[in-house]
Amino acid sequence: MKKLINDPKDVVKEALEGMALAHADILRLAPEPAFLVRADAPVEGKVGIVSGGGSGHEPMHGGLVGFGMLDAAVPGPVFTSPTPDPILEATKAVDSGRGVLHIVKNYTGDVLNFETASDLALAEEIEVRSVIVDDDVAVKDSLYTAGRRGVAGTVLVEKIAGASAERGDDLDTVAGLAEKVNANARSMGVALSACTVPHAGEPSFDLGEDEIEIGIGIHGEPGRARIAIEPADAIVDRLLAPILEDLPFASGDDVLLFVNGMGGTPEIELYIVFRRAAEVLRERGITVTRHLVGNFTTSLEMQGCSITVLRLDDELTELWDAPVHTAALRWGR
Amino acid sequence: MKKLINDPKDVVKEALEGMALAHADILRLAPEPAFLVRADAPVEGKVGIVSGGGSGHEPMHGGLVGFGMLDAAVPGPVFTSPTPDPILEATKAVDSGRGVLHIVKNYTGDVLNFETASDLALAEEIEVRSVIVDDDVAVKDSLYTAGRRGVAGTVLVEKIAGASAERGDDLDTVAGLAEKVNANARSMGVALSACTVPHAGEPSFDLGEDEIEIGIGIHGEPGRARIAIEPADAIVDRLLAPILEDLPFASGDDVLLFVNGMGGTPEIELYIVFRRAAEVLRERGITVTRHLVGNFTTSLEMQGCSITVLRLDDELTELWDAPVHTAALRWGR
Repeated sequence: MKKLINDPKDVVKEALEGMALAHADILRLAPEPAFLVRADAPVEGKVGIVSGGGSGHEPMHGGLVGFGMLDAAVPGPVFTSPTPDPILEATKAVDSGRGVLHIVKNYTGDVLNFETASDLALAEEIEVRSVIVDDDVAVKDSLYTAGRRGVAGTVLVEKIAGASAERGDDLDTVAGLAEKVNANARSMGVALSACTVPHAGEPSFDLGEDEIEIGIGIHGEPGRARIAIEPADAIVDRLLAPILEDLPFASGDDVLLFVNGMGGTPEIELYIVFRRAAEVLRERGITVTRHLVGNFTTSLEMQGCSITVLRLDDELTELWDAPVHTAALRWGR
Repeated sequence: MKKLINDPKDVVKEALEGMALAHADILRLAPEPAFLVRADAPVEGKVGIVSGGGSGHEPMHGGLVGFGMLDAAVPGPVFTSPTPDPILEATKAVDSGRGVLHIVKNYTGDVLNFETASDLALAEEIEVRSVIVDDDVAVKDSLYTAGRRGVAGTVLVEKIAGASAERGDDLDTVAGLAEKVNANARSMGVALSACTVPHAGEPSFDLGEDEIEIGIGIHGEPGRARIAIEPADAIVDRLLAPILEDLPFASGDDVLLFVNGMGGTPEIELYIVFRRAAEVLRERGITVTRHLVGNFTTSLEMQGCSITVLRLDDELTELWDAPVHTAALRWGR
């Protein structure tokens, strides 16, 4: 295992310290229990938004803390849910009296620990709503999940819910918009290589020299099929077909097309994927009115990508366009 | 070789098409000879800025085209200089009558081809100035270079020269600021793995299972030393010491600290590197007043990073902070 790390047990702690040093204008590190929180939290009169989960998916979630997006991000160890304690503390730190939304990816550990934290917050008279993200169409039930997994669509939920909270919407409205994004987003991914969790020291699964995994989970969980490598256009077609059939998306839809890198894929390849995906959507009469391309929901150094398609209406488009200022996503401010 | 590509000979063309589809609000693709150019070029009354070089270093340079930065980016084949012809056409496309700055990384092919293009532009009565970037302290003379190589510091040159041009400075001023950034920036990189050029199909060099290359070039050229993997903090110290001694940087300096990912390194590791680098600078009495962390000057899927330190004064800081709106870098607008 070759990584730019010190002691494997310090990876998350030291990366958080680096984040806090680099982005002191945006966020600060609450040290014990550790979470990243907006420098100006709690923001008076604003619904708070907390997300989190296992580390190793950066910039999600710490890189998405800031104006117009998350108020706090609670990191667990690599690929392992945070415990209820830091989730509770983050919830308390961002509550200004208007309540707090938890955005939770659908993994059994995350769901359980956010639920416990939510109960504990309620006992301290903080109103909490939870939205579970389950945008991955690849498989139903998986290694760590009952039902569908939550993957890169989470970034879109966080952006749009964040914009809603920033303009002063109440907790029901913010939660309703998060649910609306989840209901209109579908994703699927592919892995060309595995990744190595630092404290494990070995790749999390084996892929043959010419094999790829279609429908991979963001922790390397099995997908739909293991096949021989194909041209990028054929792989894109394999990812897009189940996405488009699932909602279903239809001719006349306006969509946001999100090509997400898994961490180890060159940007040049992500744009080749974007090119084909945009072509397929055009052929189906679906218009790409917004886009996102880059590494947002990663699996350490895994090579591969995921595609997310989100059906947009005027309300979602307006909230997507609203100003945001985080380490990973910024515009309009 | 597993990559998200179609025919290896179409990689650059298809990636450019994907870029143009995704970022039509910012740039367009001039098809033949191919280069990326600001959607609103030529911008009246503004000095034009053209950069370019071999592909495979994305988002540099195409992702840096836009308001406040480059007017055009001329891509060669992967790791191969573009010919004079597209450089000339890009120069003509961005000239509004106030002249054009070429920002050229110090590689023999790039220098030669930009020089030829500059002569041809002059014959068409376009005034061209060229600034050669050579920020890499690792080695003097290298596989493709006489003198020092130009690496990630190029991004900083392009940002600051771009801000100067955007506020209406004349060609001499814009070129002078680009030279000033180059004179005050020093970089050095490390590779943990090689990368594979698509049309070659094989890794560009071999690294043993526990080996790293200190002082790597962005095309995998040899550096200063091949050593056994060490903790991240020790590697950072090896990169920073020659950077700081070279200028030299001194106690009391304000600097921009730039940790650049080579393409295949998880963000979590880049922040571990940032943490140590910031610590070393603080110990030396050097203040990090600005920063940049992420994949900007990559070598396809290479694992590793580079560190760039730029000494700032008020003028450079103000131009760094000025609004920018490109695919890869955006703030303030």
